[in-house]
Amino acid sequence: MKELSINRDRLWSHLSELGEIGAYHDEVADLVGVRRLALSDEDRAGRDRVVAWMRELGLSISIDEIGNIYAERAGRDASLSPVMFGSHVDSVPTGGRFDGALGVLGALEVVRTLNDAGEQTTRPLVVGAFTDEEGCRFGTDMLGSAVATGRIPLQQAYGLTDRDGLCIGDELERIGYKGKEPVNQRRPHAYVECHVEQGPTLIREGLDVGVVTMVQAISWHELTITGRSAHAGATPTSYRVDAGLAAARINVRLREMVDSGEFGELRATMGVNRPHPGMINVIPGRVIATVDMRNPDDDGMRRAEQALGRYIEELQEQTEGLRIALRRTARTDVVPFAEKVRSAVEGAANDRGLSNRRLFAGAGHDAQEWAHVCDAGMIFAPGEYDGISHNPREYSNEKQCGDSIDVLLDVVRRLAEDV
Amino acid sequence: MKELSINRDRLWSHLSELGEIGAYHDEVADLVGVRRLALSDEDRAGRDRVVAWMRELGLSISIDEIGNIYAERAGRDASLSPVMFGSHVDSVPTGGRFDGALGVLGALEVVRTLNDAGEQTTRPLVVGAFTDEEGCRFGTDMLGSAVATGRIPLQQAYGLTDRDGLCIGDELERIGYKGKEPVNQRRPHAYVECHVEQGPTLIREGLDVGVVTMVQAISWHELTITGRSAHAGATPTSYRVDAGLAAARINVRLREMVDSGEFGELRATMGVNRPHPGMINVIPGRVIATVDMRNPDDDGMRRAEQALGRYIEELQEQTEGLRIALRRTARTDVVPFAEKVRSAVEGAANDRGLSNRRLFAGAGHDAQEWAHVCDAGMIFAPGEYDGISHNPREYSNEKQCGDSIDVLLDVVRRLAEDV
Repeated sequence: MKELSINRDRLWSHLSELGEIGAYHDEVADLVGVRRLALSDEDRAGRDRVVAWMRELGLSISIDEIGNIYAERAGRDASLSPVMFGSHVDSVPTGGRFDGALGVLGALEVVRTLNDAGEQTTRPLVVGAFTDEEGCRFGTDMLGSAVATGRIPLQQAYGLTDRDGLCIGDELERIGYKGKEPVNQRRPHAYVECHVEQGPTLIREGLDVGVVTMVQAISWHELTITGRSAHAGATPTSYRVDAGLAAARINVRLREMVDSGEFGELRATMGVNRPHPGMINVIPGRVIATVDMRNPDDDGMRRAEQALGRYIEELQEQTEGLRIALRRTARTDVVPFAEKVRSAVEGAANDRGLSNRRLFAGAGHDAQEWAHVCDAGMIFAPGEYDGISHNPREYSNEKQCGDSIDVLLDVVRRLAEDV
Repeated sequence: MKELSINRDRLWSHLSELGEIGAYHDEVADLVGVRRLALSDEDRAGRDRVVAWMRELGLSISIDEIGNIYAERAGRDASLSPVMFGSHVDSVPTGGRFDGALGVLGALEVVRTLNDAGEQTTRPLVVGAFTDEEGCRFGTDMLGSAVATGRIPLQQAYGLTDRDGLCIGDELERIGYKGKEPVNQRRPHAYVECHVEQGPTLIREGLDVGVVTMVQAISWHELTITGRSAHAGATPTSYRVDAGLAAARINVRLREMVDSGEFGELRATMGVNRPHPGMINVIPGRVIATVDMRNPDDDGMRRAEQALGRYIEELQEQTEGLRIALRRTARTDVVPFAEKVRSAVEGAANDRGLSNRRLFAGAGHDAQEWAHVCDAGMIFAPGEYDGISHNPREYSNEKQCGDSIDVLLDVVRRLAEDV
């Protein structure tokens, strides 16, 4: 196969151009970030920009009922199932320019490179940009790809509402992206996604790209801890039912569980912690908190969930009047990626002399949904500043982006000849 | 001395009437609460109502430069310093009908009872209603009495601002309570304050009134904990600097310090805990939290503050990249009340056959400021629901209010003859 490489400057300038859409000044970071919440006006503008580029590349575009955008490039054999690659263009409220965008714009750069080289692949190619990967607005992440692959029913997705009571069905219509193509029909030959790592492993180890082996299991819980609100000065310790202290004990215990090593490579985070009334001189009577657990081992995750449940029981038994309600808000098992795609990624990186390692994905990605219906895999690009993401500081430089999209190019070409 | 008792129905109806001013429906408690933030329109309306009652009682009214209201009733000997008694009419944002109001309206009921009986005391009497006891709006509690007794300079108080940047000086003027009487001039013979206990001790022990021995020491700190915000899924545990976990460890350690008994009757509360960005899948990179410590023993408090400081040092040493800034926002030593007033309260309760005990005040009160310039003391009324306060559920019934104001009547009469 002829050697091809993408045009890094062109990729970079497209990343910059899309990054202008939804740009905002982040006061905390004192940097320009990106806010393109799913199905917002900014998301529409981002989609419009991406669709215009797709048309420039001569791709034929189809929008499905959940707003996923598919841009198809014909292969030599139209009877073969296509190779699909892409990501998403929506962002978290305080996001950067690379999360999702690198996967979509990198995919377009792959097509542009093939167009420039006049190369037609055997299998058709499809660039996908999926609706609401972040889940920040309507509460369910990987929504578009989950509906596209049958995990979430379309009508259920349409009914999801944001804080203002606006539902996905109406918002899709409003921004002009409620398409006609039926969902849950596409069955590609393979799906490949390039994404920023969103973690520190590659950058700390000085590696060029990551070969993603799997997406770890995710378990999310919302805790509602009810104690008794009372005056901080006037309430003797023996009479207290301090919901904030209970939340603190759970947070500390989670880290003890992680450190114990008994639950595999468990990671645990209490990201939300809202004591009520939240005043210096009032014992918190109620706390809403969240627990995010991740684990590359399904059995370890199940045992961790059980251990958390038992600890919460213990806490309630120890303190009269304390009630802790645990509501599971998300749960997925480990999603392994296909060895065929992993090897293709690894082979491409090695052939290019790019240092790499296998690692699992810490976050959820569209690829894990497509993995349910076809061979799927991912390429990680390292990120500066310890791979910080969901933050205006998110930054992968031209080389980091270029290396990983070159690998994407190679993998797509290889899989497109896999007949 | 002739036996006199207050009119409990009349006291109750005045408490109800003042409770209508600033009444709001509290959604959390599903009850009507009181919101009369200092120097707000509601505070003005409450003050106006109280001043109108003072005029009806024939008292001569003076407003000082910080907005404290003094209502004077002549004694037989105008050369003697007066007995002052009262409290405050401002409330926390989610308050009840009794905190502060009982002390002011009870004081007026004492005067009304003396008027009805045609009794003139030897010393003059002064009912005081002090500005911004709660400190919720401008950040400094006991403000009016602290300025009146010289602890806080007037100009410093004028400059304090609320969240909207409005300052006390302007707000006093706006509501018409920037008076002309110079502050830090009044030196009463004694100060007595009746207040709801705001704690569970009296109600759990089935007692009628409390004889307050002192106000415990208070130490407030604001913690700014800086870690590193990062993706909850993608960040290996060894790379984390979790500011939320550090806050949790401090909260748990505070309770361990309390339980150790090494710091006397220490009480400790983390009432505020605000992780940033506060999202389920982001490790908190920064937390603002507060520590409220109370102690009836000054030495125990000093040792607790040192132990907290040492623990924070330890935490920072253990975790690279973790920074914890500790800013002291309030600090008072123990304020003992005068034995003369304590005995008067105890004697009056015993004479009326009211069960009572000595206890210290858990919260701060105007009486602790007046204690710096005269003999001072307090009477506690028990409260239902474990004495809950700063909450719409705050409730002392007719008997509880009546008993404690009868004791106030007796103590005021006794001190007014103390020549």
